[in-house]
Amino acid sequence: MNHLQKLQNWLAQNHFEVAYVSNPTNVAYFSGFFADPEERVQALLVFPDQDPFYFGPQLEVEAVKANGWHYPAYGYLDHQAPFDLIADQVKKRVANPTRWAIEKDDLAFGRYEKLQQAFPEAKFLGDASRFIEQAKLIKTPDEIALMKAAGKEADFAFEVGFKAVQAGRTEQEIVAEIEYALMKRGVMQMSFDTIVQAGADASDPHEGPKATQIKPDELILFDLGTVHQGYMSDATRTIAFGHPNAKALEIHKVCLEAQLTAQAAAKPGLTAAELDHIARDVITKAGYGEYFIHRLGHGIGTSTHEFPSIMEGNELQLQPGMCFSIEPGIYIPGVAGVRIEDCIHITENGNEPFTHTPKELQYI
Amino acid sequence: MNHLQKLQNWLAQNHFEVAYVSNPTNVAYFSGFFADPEERVQALLVFPDQDPFYFGPQLEVEAVKANGWHYPAYGYLDHQAPFDLIADQVKKRVANPTRWAIEKDDLAFGRYEKLQQAFPEAKFLGDASRFIEQAKLIKTPDEIALMKAAGKEADFAFEVGFKAVQAGRTEQEIVAEIEYALMKRGVMQMSFDTIVQAGADASDPHEGPKATQIKPDELILFDLGTVHQGYMSDATRTIAFGHPNAKALEIHKVCLEAQLTAQAAAKPGLTAAELDHIARDVITKAGYGEYFIHRLGHGIGTSTHEFPSIMEGNELQLQPGMCFSIEPGIYIPGVAGVRIEDCIHITENGNEPFTHTPKELQYI
Repeated sequence: MNHLQKLQNWLAQNHFEVAYVSNPTNVAYFSGFFADPEERVQALLVFPDQDPFYFGPQLEVEAVKANGWHYPAYGYLDHQAPFDLIADQVKKRVANPTRWAIEKDDLAFGRYEKLQQAFPEAKFLGDASRFIEQAKLIKTPDEIALMKAAGKEADFAFEVGFKAVQAGRTEQEIVAEIEYALMKRGVMQMSFDTIVQAGADASDPHEGPKATQIKPDELILFDLGTVHQGYMSDATRTIAFGHPNAKALEIHKVCLEAQLTAQAAAKPGLTAAELDHIARDVITKAGYGEYFIHRLGHGIGTSTHEFPSIMEGNELQLQPGMCFSIEPGIYIPGVAGVRIEDCIHITENGNEPFTHTPKELQYI
Repeated sequence: MNHLQKLQNWLAQNHFEVAYVSNPTNVAYFSGFFADPEERVQALLVFPDQDPFYFGPQLEVEAVKANGWHYPAYGYLDHQAPFDLIADQVKKRVANPTRWAIEKDDLAFGRYEKLQQAFPEAKFLGDASRFIEQAKLIKTPDEIALMKAAGKEADFAFEVGFKAVQAGRTEQEIVAEIEYALMKRGVMQMSFDTIVQAGADASDPHEGPKATQIKPDELILFDLGTVHQGYMSDATRTIAFGHPNAKALEIHKVCLEAQLTAQAAAKPGLTAAELDHIARDVITKAGYGEYFIHRLGHGIGTSTHEFPSIMEGNELQLQPGMCFSIEPGIYIPGVAGVRIEDCIHITENGNEPFTHTPKELQYI
């Protein structure tokens, strides 16, 4: 059963008459077509037992069809009122739908008001966000194949990045080398802004690359990923430039042990919370628990922030097809930071990573 | 009066007790701090006559303060309920606010529901989206200075891009050269995905750069922009690689005349619709009206899709400080496409462009 059929089944089971899917990534998940409409209106209207339709800016309509969308696609021009046109098409299929499903995580309040005006008797009872995040939780073999391809691109990016490490270069220049090499191979989109952080810069996991020159005898953290046909990679390595001090080497060793221990343990039946605990326990026992300030991992697929969330309190059992990051980190403010990350997919008996760059400390 | 004071005045004038500002670009507009919180909650809570506060992920709190935000900043951890924490802080300032303003273009329905649950008597009457788009319509001299800096970066990008044009290179490789040169200068963010389109590829204004090699004797279209401290540039040039045929040269000539005529005419008092008409008239008289398939321009500032919209039906009078694109295009499907664009700011007597790369046809 394909993604769209699953959504239609969910609508039928819950007696919803129509779903309004608006998140561009989710429009792509169900239609095969991605476009960022910015301020313009774009949606899939999906019905339990009738053909769905695409609605969006007129200039996208040909592209939707060219991408293999076999159902109707309707466009609007900037001077037209999109919700009037949507209402006309919905009413041709269901005269007066009252039970709607919307993406509550995505649909802006002002657009909900427009739908409510067009359908005064509508009740927005169904939360398609919750259905979609569950639907995306288990990846198909086709999706996993695309994520493996994205993982290979990330491995290539590490190779380029490590070679680019030279005294005097800035973090920003190393990012430039990585993304240039990827673009020359036709990889035009990163899954997030590439992070290169040297020395104490890595102690803030949120800081972008700086224009300051890297210096020998420090750790350098690389966190990067690419988008391959809509599916994402995300991986982190921390390497040694010269000979970092004993403290830096120690936190790398502890973080690596946490990462390897958790990755070896991830398999069906374990809960997300248990997996988080396995990694956290290694770091806590080594005395660095207070410096591991985030969850162990996040789901990945058509975004880098989906389910499952690998964190305390999440009693979800891991199942084959779940894809997520395992990324312990130790951040000592102003001193040094280490993070080591693979994204993996759960298999029948264990898991397989999407990236294969060695995780043991590499010296440049 | 700064941006925040203007918002507070608007709240006071309309008897709104609190505003919930959630669009990350608008949070930055009022706070000076930009972060993309992805699925996490981030907002500014602004009151007519009390200090505002920032609320967001815990890991952003230090960065907000470091960026010069002098008011309180509160964080939450992933296992906490953000809207409970927001409600607690709001209630310390206003016991039970009933008149709220929200950004109706941004606030997701599910988050509106959370606010409504926390404040059952609240009415969400004010649309802060409409106030903010009006507030952003007129740029201050400081903002215009940042946009000039972004324009210089775009001019540099054209210089690099034109030099990169060689037989056998792909459109994607030319994009790689442009973005690499910018990153090496520390320009780490483009305002949108860089467009390079050769020959017939340019007849679809929406298509990204391809992996196909460029050929001599065609036009090549470059559309690009950068982000400088949160403010954007956006410019388009179409150049000749070798000796394009007579039809291509003709549509470039017509498009250039339309662009130059409109840019010479843009001044206070003219309406947006009149300016669109001036450019459209040149193209229509030359017989290509049906191939100019979009509005003449869009506002620009902290985004590339703000007011004023330069299009038919918009009777808004141009005023000093308005910033927008003037970008006529002629797209003959399957044959060739031309677009020429400067963004400008309206001055007391006319306008000034942010980009200065020659617009006359350049031969490579």
